[in-house]
Amino acid sequence: MYNLRTPGPTPCPDEVLQAMARQMVNHLGPEFEQALHEVIGGLKKIFQTKNDILLFTCSGSGGLESAIVNMLSPGDKVLAVIIGFFGERFASFAQAHGVNVIPLSFSWGRAADIDEIRKALDNDPEIKAVFVTHNETSTGVTNDVKAISSLVKRYDKLLFVDAISSLGSIDLPVDYWHCDITITASQKGWMVPPGMAMISVSPEAWKAHAEARIPRAYFNFSYTKECMEKGHLPWTPAVPILFALSTSLKMMLKEGLKNIIARHVQVGQATRDGVKSLGLSLFADENYASNTVTVAKAPQNLDVKKLLKILREDFDIVLAGGYQKLAESIFRIGHLGWVTTDDIKEVISALRVVLPRATAP
Amino acid sequence: MYNLRTPGPTPCPDEVLQAMARQMVNHLGPEFEQALHEVIGGLKKIFQTKNDILLFTCSGSGGLESAIVNMLSPGDKVLAVIIGFFGERFASFAQAHGVNVIPLSFSWGRAADIDEIRKALDNDPEIKAVFVTHNETSTGVTNDVKAISSLVKRYDKLLFVDAISSLGSIDLPVDYWHCDITITASQKGWMVPPGMAMISVSPEAWKAHAEARIPRAYFNFSYTKECMEKGHLPWTPAVPILFALSTSLKMMLKEGLKNIIARHVQVGQATRDGVKSLGLSLFADENYASNTVTVAKAPQNLDVKKLLKILREDFDIVLAGGYQKLAESIFRIGHLGWVTTDDIKEVISALRVVLPRATAP
Repeated sequence: MYNLRTPGPTPCPDEVLQAMARQMVNHLGPEFEQALHEVIGGLKKIFQTKNDILLFTCSGSGGLESAIVNMLSPGDKVLAVIIGFFGERFASFAQAHGVNVIPLSFSWGRAADIDEIRKALDNDPEIKAVFVTHNETSTGVTNDVKAISSLVKRYDKLLFVDAISSLGSIDLPVDYWHCDITITASQKGWMVPPGMAMISVSPEAWKAHAEARIPRAYFNFSYTKECMEKGHLPWTPAVPILFALSTSLKMMLKEGLKNIIARHVQVGQATRDGVKSLGLSLFADENYASNTVTVAKAPQNLDVKKLLKILREDFDIVLAGGYQKLAESIFRIGHLGWVTTDDIKEVISALRVVLPRATAP
Repeated sequence: MYNLRTPGPTPCPDEVLQAMARQMVNHLGPEFEQALHEVIGGLKKIFQTKNDILLFTCSGSGGLESAIVNMLSPGDKVLAVIIGFFGERFASFAQAHGVNVIPLSFSWGRAADIDEIRKALDNDPEIKAVFVTHNETSTGVTNDVKAISSLVKRYDKLLFVDAISSLGSIDLPVDYWHCDITITASQKGWMVPPGMAMISVSPEAWKAHAEARIPRAYFNFSYTKECMEKGHLPWTPAVPILFALSTSLKMMLKEGLKNIIARHVQVGQATRDGVKSLGLSLFADENYASNTVTVAKAPQNLDVKKLLKILREDFDIVLAGGYQKLAESIFRIGHLGWVTTDDIKEVISALRVVLPRATAP
């Protein structure tokens, strides 16, 4: 078995894998209804919200699109705070649907600057909503959503938070921080395989939904809410993922959210310390370094592809490469969900051996 | 364990459930790429096609929407052949996206009438595409797609086939019958849990895609094709469903498509004979009765909800009720995928005992 240290899919505990292997049930029957009830209850505790939480059978990216098509109309102005690849993706999805996206991009590796967001909001009172990535998996940076939210709410805008790789690992009190739409996905801190997106919707967001005119069908929020109130989901959902989430949420609630967050702080610090102990630099501004994924800069003569190949083939360790312009110049270590400092120690020890083998003299 | 006889989700063989429990892998790594390659190869044999097959993490309904948003532009005229609830859903999804839908509805329980389709195509030369449900799960009717296709292609229209509950169970030679877009989903004849839609795209459909202007992001066909050619899927896909499909396709190819189809013919006939032996009538026109789902008419004094409850609680047998206007007046027996005549014998025997208990004197 691999020490799978990509920032998703993450490894799953045995109990979760056993839940995946449960025989199918009627998705309109009582076993499904009970699991749905348990999952929503558990999710609300981890989201720290009283808002509705909707489930969709899709990847996290499907969750991002669902937020756009349910909340906005063509021509609506949106400020997209972009600090990496996934912020760009969120913005590009909105553009595809005719949303008037005002991109506010920061250099990769940096967090969003609050003053720049303020200036952008001052410059354009027509902005209706702000998109922000809580944790940018491509660069290993966590934005200060608390500060961003406090600003955005002073301007009375809707706040969309891509929390795909943060929720359940990094503190994100959805109600306290007034996140209107918060999107996460099963294969991240939730310790479950990919296949389901989970999305919280605030009362203000429901008001926006009532007026939003981008067409939608599969991702229809109000129809989904209507079905969920009757104990099922629209369409035929990924039943095994729901069973797995039900199991993993019990494990998470037993560990306790505070303890989970503290464990990610500890593991994140251990990873950064480990990477630095190898003589490598961190890609992210350390004041905003992510506790779910660490991005290491590759020295110029390091062959990243070779490094990843040797780690996988000789050490059963799977790390991730970089996106786009960073493909050859970084590598990424995922540490979210089912992870301890021991898993990271193994990675650092292996890197200590493999780095010289993958480095040109 | 239940004898789960809903028309999806269907029960899964042990080998498939074990594949669901496999530990996660990197969705951009070699294990995933190999499984993807195997799955597409196997699907092409069962689809009987050389066309591209695309995979999406979603329900079958997501697959229907993906076909609409990738092939059409707002205002395009489409003839929607509707013989039940799922035909209505397909049409309503297109309407949601601004497609000009010409509905051609037949009374529930009947198959589509070829002459009526011909008249509709004659009446309106602007029609660009025809939607047809191969197997209508709400009524237990299988349309004659061979005849419909032959007609539609004489008029040189695009043919969209909802084959969600037919492909892999009922013969549907996609290339021979010139189906441009064919949509199916994992939880039906494929013996796999829900979570993935599989869609074939003909060269003519790709031409339509190049001109289609309905916005799309998550369901983008050309981006999906581009990623699949590199050995992965866009976004983070439902990895366990892919592993399960890889396993089930090996089982299906070992049994052989002809044998699978013959088994469904045999089981379908056994179900209809069994239902009639109980003194019940079939809802569907028997000339077009489905070999994957049988719909029985409920006698006026039969309490359908009570019947389903007793079967589930006392006999571990799960059947399905009816949709919408048929909720109280029919019940449905699914017999697709992992099913033998013995499973059906058990259902009929139980019905023989329970029908009197659920019937008012």
